[in-house]
Amino acid sequence: MSAAILAGVRPGLLSRALLHQLRGLHVSAPRPRGARVAVVLSGCGVYDGTEIHEASAILVHLSRGGADVQIYAPDVSQMHVIDHSKGQPTEGDSRNVLAESARIARGKITDLAKLAANDHDAVIFPGGFGAAKNLSTFAVDGKDCKVNGDVERVLKDFHKAGKPIGLCCISPVLAAKVLPGTEVTVGHEEEQGGKWPYAGTAGAIKALGGKHHVKEVTEAHVDTKHKVVTTPAFMCETDLHHIFDGIGAMVKNVLKLTGK
Amino acid sequence: MSAAILAGVRPGLLSRALLHQLRGLHVSAPRPRGARVAVVLSGCGVYDGTEIHEASAILVHLSRGGADVQIYAPDVSQMHVIDHSKGQPTEGDSRNVLAESARIARGKITDLAKLAANDHDAVIFPGGFGAAKNLSTFAVDGKDCKVNGDVERVLKDFHKAGKPIGLCCISPVLAAKVLPGTEVTVGHEEEQGGKWPYAGTAGAIKALGGKHHVKEVTEAHVDTKHKVVTTPAFMCETDLHHIFDGIGAMVKNVLKLTGK
Repeated sequence: MSAAILAGVRPGLLSRALLHQLRGLHVSAPRPRGARVAVVLSGCGVYDGTEIHEASAILVHLSRGGADVQIYAPDVSQMHVIDHSKGQPTEGDSRNVLAESARIARGKITDLAKLAANDHDAVIFPGGFGAAKNLSTFAVDGKDCKVNGDVERVLKDFHKAGKPIGLCCISPVLAAKVLPGTEVTVGHEEEQGGKWPYAGTAGAIKALGGKHHVKEVTEAHVDTKHKVVTTPAFMCETDLHHIFDGIGAMVKNVLKLTGK
Repeated sequence: MSAAILAGVRPGLLSRALLHQLRGLHVSAPRPRGARVAVVLSGCGVYDGTEIHEASAILVHLSRGGADVQIYAPDVSQMHVIDHSKGQPTEGDSRNVLAESARIARGKITDLAKLAANDHDAVIFPGGFGAAKNLSTFAVDGKDCKVNGDVERVLKDFHKAGKPIGLCCISPVLAAKVLPGTEVTVGHEEEQGGKWPYAGTAGAIKALGGKHHVKEVTEAHVDTKHKVVTTPAFMCETDLHHIFDGIGAMVKNVLKLTGK
C-alpha cells in the first residue's frame, strides 16, 4: 500500500520516513476497548455524502469514551458528485460511496454488506446529504423514500437485538422510516429567523411515521423504548463547537445504553 | 445553488424543506467575533489532501475560542488521487485542491491566492499528505522540496507581520523550509515500537533548517520568537481524542499569541 500511495515519489532518505508513516497509519492499538461501535458513512462531504464534521465529532467522542470503532459504508455509486466550491453537480463524474467514505476512515473501512449486529454493541449514522441521497432516496422521494437494503437490515437487526442506534442531522429520517413509532429529534419545528432552516423536516419525520421531539443543538433525545438517540447537529445554524457538544451528548447516551 | 445541488430532485413538500436547509447552510451568524484566523487546506483525505480530523479539530477549537474563521486552498490540481479504500492511486483521475477542500469547508472557501495577512490575525495549516504533495513537493523531494508560491508568501507575510502561525502533523516542514531557524515539533525522534512511526521526520526538519523539539501528542510547542505553534497530531499512533486535545493546545496558543 505504501509504495502505491507514493507512486511517483523518488526513493531517498525521506521517503523511508514516509513509508514508516504510512505503515503506522495502519497499526491498531492492541489494548482492550469498551463498547464495540459500528459507524456507517455515506460518502465524504455535506452535499453528496457524510457531513465531515459530524463524522469526525462522533469518532472523537467514541475515542474518548473508550469505544472500539469499526467504520462501514455501502459499496454503491453516489447519487450525485457535487463540486462543493461551486455548489453544482459535476456532470459526467461518478464516485463510489465506500471509496469516498474511506477518506474519513483513513482507509480502515468495511463494506456495509458485512455489518452484523452480532459483532457490535451499537451503531451510529452521521448526517449529511449522503444519508438522504445514498443511504435512502429521501432527498428525492421524501416520505415515500426507499432505504438502502443493508441500512434497513442493520437498523432492524440492532433494534431487534436491543442494541442502541445513534443518528444526527438528517439521518433520523432513516430510523423514522424503518422503525415506525420511533421518537427522534431534528431540532426545532419553527425556523426562528434562520436559526433552524431545516424546521420543515420535523413534519417529514411525522409523515414517515416517527414522533418528533424538539431539542436544542447541544442536546440529544433518547427514545429509551427503541434505544434510538438523536441530536440536531447541522440542522441548526450555529457555531461548530455547539454541534460538536450535541454530538457528544448523543454518543455518551449511546454508550450508556450499551451498558458497557 | 440550492436547485443545482438538488438537480434531479423532485419538487414537493419535502424539497421545500430541503431548499430551506440548503439556504441555511450559507447563512452566517452576524454577531461579532474574536481573532480572525485563516485556515489553509490542501484537499480532503489523509493520503492525497488535508487530514480530515485534524482540519475538523482545528475548526472546533477555533469555534470554541470565538475565532472568525476563513478557509482557503490553492486552485491547483492534486499531485495524486488516492482511492483511500484501496490505498492506491486512481489512474486517469484528477481532482482540484480547492474543490476537494471545499468539502471540509462546507462550500465556504476562497482561493489561497487571495489570502492577505492584513485580513487576519493568524493562519493555521492542518497536516495530511496534501501538505507534502500539494502545498509543497516534500513527499517527492524531501529537504530539497519546493513550496507552493502562495503558501511561501503567506508564511513569510504572517511572520513579517508578527502574526502567529499554527501547524500540525507533517505541515511543520513548510515552516522549517520557508522560515529558517524556526522551532517546531513533529513529536518524538525515536519510533518507540510503532508509537511514533513518523520519527524520521524530525531529521528532515533539521535538514530543512528547522530546530526540532520533542513533544507528546497532547502538547504543542510554542516558538515565541517566530510565533510558530506546532503539535504532532497524526504523527503519533494513538487514540483520536489525544490528537484532538493536542490540536486544542495548538489552537489555544495560536489564539493567545494574537493577543485577542
